[in-house]
Order: sequence, then structure tokens, then C-alpha cells
Amino acid sequence: MAKKMTIVLFSGELDRALAAFNVATTAASMGMEVTIFFTFWGLNAIRKQTSGRKASGWMRKMFNWMNRGGTRNLPLSKFDMVGVGRSMMKKVMKDSNLPSLEEMMSLAKELGVRFIACTTTIGMMGLGPEDFVSYVDEYAGAATYLGQAQQGVVNLFI
Amino acid sequence: MAKKMTIVLFSGELDRALAAFNVATTAASMGMEVTIFFTFWGLNAIRKQTSGRKASGWMRKMFNWMNRGGTRNLPLSKFDMVGVGRSMMKKVMKDSNLPSLEEMMSLAKELGVRFIACTTTIGMMGLGPEDFVSYVDEYAGAATYLGQAQQGVVNLFI
Amino acid sequence: MAKKMTIVLFSGELDRALAAFNVATTAASMGMEVTIFFTFWGLNAIRKQTSGRKASGWMRKMFNWMNRGGTRNLPLSKFDMVGVGRSMMKKVMKDSNLPSLEEMMSLAKELGVRFIACTTTIGMMGLGPEDFVSYVDEYAGAATYLGQAQQGVVNLFI
Repeated sequence: MAKKMTIVLFSGELDRALAAFNVATTAASMGMEVTIFFTFWGLNAIRKQTSGRKASGWMRKMFNWMNRGGTRNLPLSKFDMVGVGRSMMKKVMKDSNLPSLEEMMSLAKELGVRFIACTTTIGMMGLGPEDFVSYVDEYAGAATYLGQAQQGVVNLFI
Repeated sequence: MAKKMTIVLFSGELDRALAAFNVATTAASMGMEVTIFFTFWGLNAIRKQTSGRKASGWMRKMFNWMNRGGTRNLPLSKFDMVGVGRSMMKKVMKDSNLPSLEEMMSLAKELGVRFIACTTTIGMMGLGPEDFVSYVDEYAGAATYLGQAQQGVVNLFI
Repeated sequence: MAKKMTIVLFSGELDRALAAFNVATTAASMGMEVTIFFTFWGLNAIRKQTSGRKASGWMRKMFNWMNRGGTRNLPLSKFDMVGVGRSMMKKVMKDSNLPSLEEMMSLAKELGVRFIACTTTIGMMGLGPEDFVSYVDEYAGAATYLGQAQQGVVNLFI
């Protein structure tokens, strides 16, 4: 039986998302069953760039305007410098023949990595399934995550 | 026998504390035995707002003045904007009928979640048991945490 | 047979490195077999202060100039204040008779903690083995880490 792994992706930074997907795709290619639970800022990695426009209330609208979704909008946790740092990192990754985040996410889906989007955060942000990319397999809460994590031999919070 | 879970709460941000307590209370309500080990900035979640005043030495005093304890003083890891962001998040959570951090901590205690406060950090900060809320079950170090984590089926560092 | 533990050290901050080494040395002194996988900013803890000068390309040179390695250059995640905070923390740790990060790293090696440096990040940064301290046992990627983590009873991402 395949060994299981879970990752909670809580953080909304490019570098942490890259680390999560590097581990996830490597594990999946080694035959492990991998589940990623996207919650809080981590949801930004699977949000459409146009997401959040229909959220009700000015506070949610303002919050979703600041907290833009989409892989292209993820900052670096260090040296982002309003986007200069992340552009440099993408260039350096390309020069080193490393896959981009978008390529790693696509690879993760091909390898059967399961994407769960946290309904509690989604509800709080006033978002809905229409705000997310088609990679999402399931919309669920912490109980579903914990059901998977109880069977995991490796469980990480990133 | 109940499955065990441990969480190290290292971070001092409201969003990460909410994630920790959401997972902890969900796990406990599913019948798991949950232990939270509060260390470094994570101790702020269980410090009294008036804590740290008796710490000896001007550096510790200054440090405790900057690093104020108490759930109300926890910033967001993003968009905190000197408190505006956290107020907005609290309002949005209330509008979404989500429990506040204080309510989740109270629920965690009702469900039997065990709170361990890290003595190494407490000693370094010049604090004592009088600086913490009554929720704390035990004052102990990394060895006690590791004893629990060795039995845990899920162990997270947040 | 000894229980195994793995830590991914992803973060480049002094406080998180201290937490990682406090747990690692405590676990090792309890008889656990501990592996630390240094990746991304976490590599800074095991880089020489003079590292990165030979990296090719002006972007990598600039990046390595900003992202200086060496334990002395690790900032605090909070209240660093261009170095004032970290100096204060080191002073307070010394006054509390707590070992410094350098002492904990040395202790970790004496206790047999295994250091793996992530080749993917090292390649991306244009670095090589000559840029790292002699503590490193192995240069390897995520697959090697996962092989260890699958056997770990405690696996943390810091």
C-alpha cells in the first residue's frame, strides 16, 4: 500500500509554495500518495487572478484587493522589493532549468497529488468555487485534512 | 486508545494562532489527544496583557515592552497595518459566525487540549508563571514536548 | 532501534534556527537519530560568511550579496531592527546561560545529528560545497530527505 503524505500550505509566499510543491512532486514520483490542504494565505496559490471581485461587504472587497490571488502575485518572504526579487528568482530558476511554480503545480496534478481547499477560510473571505483554478479536487475543512493526516507517515505545515 | 497529536506554536501571529487552534479543536472533537507546546513568540498567545513588567534588566524590560503578550496584541503576519488589518479580520470572522481566538482557546481547554509552556524561552525573557493565563497545564522544555511527539500520529510546527 | 526525527530548516532567521537546534540537540541527547535538511534560506545557517562570491551572473552575485550567509548574519523574524534586536537577544541568551547558535550547532554534530544541504537550492544560488561549513554530511535533494522522513516518528518543517 502506498505511503501517505500531507502538506498544509498556510503561507502565501512564492518561496514557501515552491518548497511545498518540490516536496509534493518528489514524494508523488516516489510513489507516495500526497494531499495538499490549502488554507489561509496558501489559498492564493490556487486562486484565479480575477478572484474575489464578487465578495460582499467593503471590508472583504478591500481585503481581496490587497490579498490578490494567482501564482503570479505571490511575493517572496524575503527581498521581494515590490516584485523585483520575485522576478529575479524566476529568472534565476529558469536559467538553472528548474520548473516554475505553474509547471510544478501541473506536474503535481499529473502525478495525482490531491488538492483540498479550506472551506472555513474561503467562507471568511467571501469567496466561492468560481474563484479557484480547476486543480482543486475537494472543498473541505480541518476534519477532512485530519482524516488524511492520521494516515500520513509524513505531515508538514508550511 | 486515542490517537495523539502535537502542535508546536512558535509563531506569534494571530493568523497562525487561529490555524493552530482550528486544527487543535477539530482534532480534539474527533477524539484525538492534543498537546500544544507554546514556545518563543507563540507564548504571546497565553501571556497576560500585563506580563513582563517585573523582568530584570533594561534589555528584557524593553524587549517585553515591544513584544507585548495577550491575544489582543497578536498582529497578522500580512496586512496588519499597525492593527487595522487584525481588526478587519476579527470583524469579518464575526460576520462569518466564526469563533474568535479567545473562544477557540476556551473551547480547546473544554475539549481537554493540553497546554505546555516552554520554560527555556520563559527563562530567557525573564518571565514567570504569574505572567501566564490559567490555561497552562505544565511548564516544561523540549524533552517533554519530544516525549509527546514520539507518540503523536500528527506533529506540526506552526 | 533508535527512533528517527527529521527537521526541514527552510527559514533563515536566528530565532527559527535556534528552535530547530534546540529540538534537534534535545532529541539527539534522548537517543533519537536526527537529520536536518537545510534548504532555501535555511542554508544560510551553514554557509560561510564569505560564501557566494564566485557565483556567475550579476543577478546571482547581487542576490548572494543581499542574502549573506553565516550564523552571524541571521536576522530575527521580529524586532531585528537592522541588527539591534539580534544583538540584544544574544546578550540576553548569554546572561541566561543559554548556548549560542554556534555552540548548539557544534553540540549537534558531537551528538551525531546529520546535516543534509539541499542541492536544488545550492545550484539555483550558484553556490558549491566550498561555500559551506564542514558540518555538512551530505549534499542531496528532496528524495533523500523524504527517504529519511518516511522512517521518522517526528518530522517538522521550520
